[in-house]
Amino acid sequence: MALQERAIRTKRAILVAAAAVFAEVGYEAATISEILQRADAAKGSLYFHFASKVELAQAVLAGQLAAIPAPPQQELVLQQGVDEAFLLAHLLFMGDPVVQGSIRLTVDQGTPHDALDRRVPMNGWIEHNNEMLGKAKERGELLPHVDVAATARMFVGAFTGVQVLSKVMTSHVDLPERVSDLQHHLMASIAVPAVLVQLDMAADRGARVYEAALRLRDEGQDGRGGPGRRTARAAT
Amino acid sequence: MALQERAIRTKRAILVAAAAVFAEVGYEAATISEILQRADAAKGSLYFHFASKVELAQAVLAGQLAAIPAPPQQELVLQQGVDEAFLLAHLLFMGDPVVQGSIRLTVDQGTPHDALDRRVPMNGWIEHNNEMLGKAKERGELLPHVDVAATARMFVGAFTGVQVLSKVMTSHVDLPERVSDLQHHLMASIAVPAVLVQLDMAADRGARVYEAALRLRDEGQDGRGGPGRRTARAAT
Repeated sequence: MALQERAIRTKRAILVAAAAVFAEVGYEAATISEILQRADAAKGSLYFHFASKVELAQAVLAGQLAAIPAPPQQELVLQQGVDEAFLLAHLLFMGDPVVQGSIRLTVDQGTPHDALDRRVPMNGWIEHNNEMLGKAKERGELLPHVDVAATARMFVGAFTGVQVLSKVMTSHVDLPERVSDLQHHLMASIAVPAVLVQLDMAADRGARVYEAALRLRDEGQDGRGGPGRRTARAAT
Repeated sequence: MALQERAIRTKRAILVAAAAVFAEVGYEAATISEILQRADAAKGSLYFHFASKVELAQAVLAGQLAAIPAPPQQELVLQQGVDEAFLLAHLLFMGDPVVQGSIRLTVDQGTPHDALDRRVPMNGWIEHNNEMLGKAKERGELLPHVDVAATARMFVGAFTGVQVLSKVMTSHVDLPERVSDLQHHLMASIAVPAVLVQLDMAADRGARVYEAALRLRDEGQDGRGGPGRRTARAAT
């Protein structure tokens, strides 16, 4: 293995191990030694990639959106947005360490002096939804009164809370159903009827889209372009 | 002051101080000595009322619903439900220690061994919404397809998250507007049109209802009975 490739793998292993430790015990209680043990890495290589625990945590926070594989492209922009939420829910449901760790870092209030910027993943999702809803509006998928910016922010908040509640009540076991409930209500308040009736918001949507997204990734397609379309259709 | 009355006041002072400390530093970092100092109470009287830190935290969790003053009664059951959410948001916006502490205890994941039962306030709100939506359904305020149990749970989750997001992004400064956005979307998905157009979901609703609830309480009325109605109308 080339040196550079090995460095990338080590960095990734440290990031995943850190996310898992943050997910289990939170930021304060997480220790560098526990992270090193999980990653099977040396102290020197951790500090080569990350200057401090806070920098490591910030990298986990920043990696939240990138942890979601690109879902197959859909005819309807709103279906694409729905699918991304279902994918995130499915990763939480399966216990993906990066998503779990990142979300715990975002939601736990921490201490005022921990210097973690929890707005990073929130802003990422808000901007992403803003773009998605803006495109849906252009295509005529939204009811005329919909305020794109307010709705983008509200979706992020509502999803966050449905996830917190599912974690508290069932350790994420009922999350796919709860996200399905949420999507049904939110889409009913923004989608034009002709779009609404076409949306697939069933509780098993996340699992189906996840399989399709992995197939796309294995085929070396990014799911945002044209070639993935066939796989997308096969999955839905 | 009678001995019993003094004991009740001391217990209350300890509870409020504990909630404030939990709100600021979270459950793990909170210390009994800090709580005693804030409450200006002796160790003996704290342990007379609460056997341990976990019991104190559980009392703060259990006090979440009771911390919300009863809003004036409304003609529409859905307006009553909307008002309760706005009241909770207003208390968070104003920095009420019991509500802030209780919500932080609920949302922070903590450690597996902390033995805190975070489901208590969540279950309380879910049952409360279940009852409210059930009544709204009986009165014909809901669209026929609405699943009361699923919707009650979804409301609690969505509110929780909108609150978390507002805390992360603005320290709750924008919470009244964010709750207004959320209510507009959720009510559009459950209320019959004739009810929907009557609902007051403006961002300043919480402040108005809070003033009215305090007046009702000062007048010794509980806001759930008949005599509060006049005050209710004056406030809205």
